[in-house]
Amino acid sequence: MSARERFAKNLRAARKAKGLSQEALGELADLHPTYVGSVERGERNISVDNMDRLARALELDVVDLLRQPV
Amino acid sequence: MSARERFAKNLRAARKAKGLSQEALGELADLHPTYVGSVERGERNISVDNMDRLARALELDVVDLLRQPV
Repeated sequence: MSARERFAKNLRAARKAKGLSQEALGELADLHPTYVGSVERGERNISVDNMDRLARALELDVVDLLRQPV
Repeated sequence: MSARERFAKNLRAARKAKGLSQEALGELADLHPTYVGSVERGERNISVDNMDRLARALELDVVDLLRQPV
């Protein structure tokens, strides 16, 4: 599984575990409301800085979102 | 330390541990020869796909290059 796919799956799982909508997470990370959805669908070749922002918004480390999903 | 800085430091350490020049790693990962240098200097907001390519070229997992450097 590519890093992009891992990040997409882990992001969705972590967001749901926090009970956040895609829009709410986008707002927390100061990213466009539709951005999170495109990342979760694997459509976006996300940058390291934005990965960091999303991880921090979820109070996680970026490594947590790149591990092999269980 | 930001994810970008971590990746920069870990990439340099892993490349050197393999005895590779920046140009040689760039070639292995099918990236421009000067690209690796700009990533190692933290100048580039690298994408997840390119992080994956560099990790694979070093026979590592992208998570290995995003851990807190020791």
